[in-house]
Amino acid sequence: MRTQVAIIGAGPSGLLLGQLLHKAGVDAVIVERKSADYVLGRIRAGVLEQITMDLLDEAGVGARMHVEGLIHDGINLLFKGQRHRIDMRELTGGSKVMVYGQTEVTHDLMNARQAAGLTTVYEAGNVSVHDFDGARPTVRYEKDGQTHEIECDFIAGCDGYHGVSRASVPASALRTYEKVYPFGWLGIMVDAPPVAHELIYANSQRGFALCSMRSTHRSRYYLQCSMDEKVANWSDEAFWNELRLRLDPEAAEHLVTGPSIEKSIAPLRSFVAEPMRFGRLFLAGDAAHIVPPTGAKGLNLATSDVSYLSKALIEFYKEKSSVGIDHYSDHCLRRVWKAARFSWWFTSLMHKFPDTGEFGQKIQEAELDYLVHSRAASTALAENYVGLPMETN
Amino acid sequence: MRTQVAIIGAGPSGLLLGQLLHKAGVDAVIVERKSADYVLGRIRAGVLEQITMDLLDEAGVGARMHVEGLIHDGINLLFKGQRHRIDMRELTGGSKVMVYGQTEVTHDLMNARQAAGLTTVYEAGNVSVHDFDGARPTVRYEKDGQTHEIECDFIAGCDGYHGVSRASVPASALRTYEKVYPFGWLGIMVDAPPVAHELIYANSQRGFALCSMRSTHRSRYYLQCSMDEKVANWSDEAFWNELRLRLDPEAAEHLVTGPSIEKSIAPLRSFVAEPMRFGRLFLAGDAAHIVPPTGAKGLNLATSDVSYLSKALIEFYKEKSSVGIDHYSDHCLRRVWKAARFSWWFTSLMHKFPDTGEFGQKIQEAELDYLVHSRAASTALAENYVGLPMETN
Repeated sequence: MRTQVAIIGAGPSGLLLGQLLHKAGVDAVIVERKSADYVLGRIRAGVLEQITMDLLDEAGVGARMHVEGLIHDGINLLFKGQRHRIDMRELTGGSKVMVYGQTEVTHDLMNARQAAGLTTVYEAGNVSVHDFDGARPTVRYEKDGQTHEIECDFIAGCDGYHGVSRASVPASALRTYEKVYPFGWLGIMVDAPPVAHELIYANSQRGFALCSMRSTHRSRYYLQCSMDEKVANWSDEAFWNELRLRLDPEAAEHLVTGPSIEKSIAPLRSFVAEPMRFGRLFLAGDAAHIVPPTGAKGLNLATSDVSYLSKALIEFYKEKSSVGIDHYSDHCLRRVWKAARFSWWFTSLMHKFPDTGEFGQKIQEAELDYLVHSRAASTALAENYVGLPMETN
Repeated sequence: MRTQVAIIGAGPSGLLLGQLLHKAGVDAVIVERKSADYVLGRIRAGVLEQITMDLLDEAGVGARMHVEGLIHDGINLLFKGQRHRIDMRELTGGSKVMVYGQTEVTHDLMNARQAAGLTTVYEAGNVSVHDFDGARPTVRYEKDGQTHEIECDFIAGCDGYHGVSRASVPASALRTYEKVYPFGWLGIMVDAPPVAHELIYANSQRGFALCSMRSTHRSRYYLQCSMDEKVANWSDEAFWNELRLRLDPEAAEHLVTGPSIEKSIAPLRSFVAEPMRFGRLFLAGDAAHIVPPTGAKGLNLATSDVSYLSKALIEFYKEKSSVGIDHYSDHCLRRVWKAARFSWWFTSLMHKFPDTGEFGQKIQEAELDYLVHSRAASTALAENYVGLPMETN
């Protein structure tokens, strides 16, 4: 098989890249290790920045999002038992975010890809990438007992943190930076209206809590938990009781509970790999960087990578220019590090850390007190939360 | 001896409080463990916030400061080899700071106190404070082989971190918060013009450096050093060589060196004691809190404490009201914690930490990159550096 761009991974990054390339007349094949149902079953983030909304529109898949998604103009910070609203729209001169689950984004992209009759190879075994340091890279995989090879001009590694793309880069060519946080998030999904119209980020002496949602009738709640916590130790009852203790009295009273439809624990990690391009192999999204979920930046960083990458590849084919390709890594990484910084900062501000003691708790409360009363500091939070501008120089 | 307010400590806090009380007709005696020359020989901070300038004017001791002090409208952040200016005056709508050494402030206050014929007991031995939980506190000390007692209405503990005032409070009544940073500052004073008109705060892979000054012809430079470093290991030559390596090429080239007139190592610590009032004993300045010197907040926090305390005491005598006294601790601490937070943050941003590794260095650079390019983030730094408003509710 021969294509212009072989995309590894059919998550939102790979699907979005495929769609943007297709719109511009660039051929791409997507190879995915898992089944379509498996990919759709992964529950991930749900807050989209404006650049992500714009890119989904550009890809022609924004229609359902605009109908079903919820526009959020602000978030709430809860500390010392009191809730404070950050009016993001007012502080940033009109920017807002969209609550629309990553699963829904993936669904819309899959449907569009299918409707356009584009090739996605699901359940591809032993995917491997080759010769990306030369002019003729290839991707190999096994399916139905046979080995297949895709000849291509470029490989886009959109296959996540554990994928084969980054793992295929020689260690000497790669620099990685990592921080593992000393806690996890115990998350629950429930078919019940959210406790508040907007997200509540809670700093409490019992640990962090987050009240989020996927729609007006599906809520997502999280509790900071120890790294070695087990889901089996948490009945729904125990979860709701602990959540109430971390919220303000009004929220605790209005919390609508119900049987969990999903319950899981996720670790928190910051990770960045540099560079993001190796000859004709590009890394995008989680393949190159992981952020803790506190700032809702994971999916949005992936889409900004895809934005740079699609433009660079289209420029290459339409204008015979390698400028975008040559700047891809630098452009991405500048934005990646700022979002990594923001995610690290917001995580550090809101969670209980086992090693910083009472001084750490007081410093957090002082920072929150300053933050909600200073227009400059509130604006800094808001402009990061809605998404910093794309870097273009 | 009998007075209205017994002040322990003749540093800038104690002297300023004495002067403000005197202006309002309230009697005070100052008791100081050391000699006047010893107090004047201590080299400390040199950057005054507007509230400190205003308070020195209110105390009638601002004349020389206005002639000899240097108004600074901005500071410079140096990272990844490049200097970026933070225009504090423009960002804050007109605020600025004054470079004028703490030693000079102390000198001006001493002269004013002497001119007014007010009592300061220097070289007082075995100072002790008594009965501050009742209506008739006393201060005892030894001098010239005799024990002396001062009967007073209130005791103001302005005697620093190691002083007797805080040490006399029962441990059960005191809550303390502390962080010791894993490095120190090696400082040098030199009679040479500063390398730049404004301060340069440098984040380098070799560690933090600061280019400061006391006047147009006296410069103060600092290098982050390990906690167990010895002054004897650092010749002037070695200091200048290391400093050049932490600056940008232009600064390294224009650095004017000379023989050091002072060289010392200071540890970096954050410390806050709560509350700041115990019956008729008040703590002010370093007696209640220590900040690392990075944000130049130590002296300015002491003066804001003195501002609250002088107003509270004057209100008590003039209006028979205890409102100011009752709110003293809360008003001070809210501002103290914000300045402690800022000092901790600025210290964390600029220094090389042994335990955060390359991820930590990259996060610092990403934050600095964001900070100097975001008006909101630059404003947040600027408004803290020039001093947050006094809390009044």
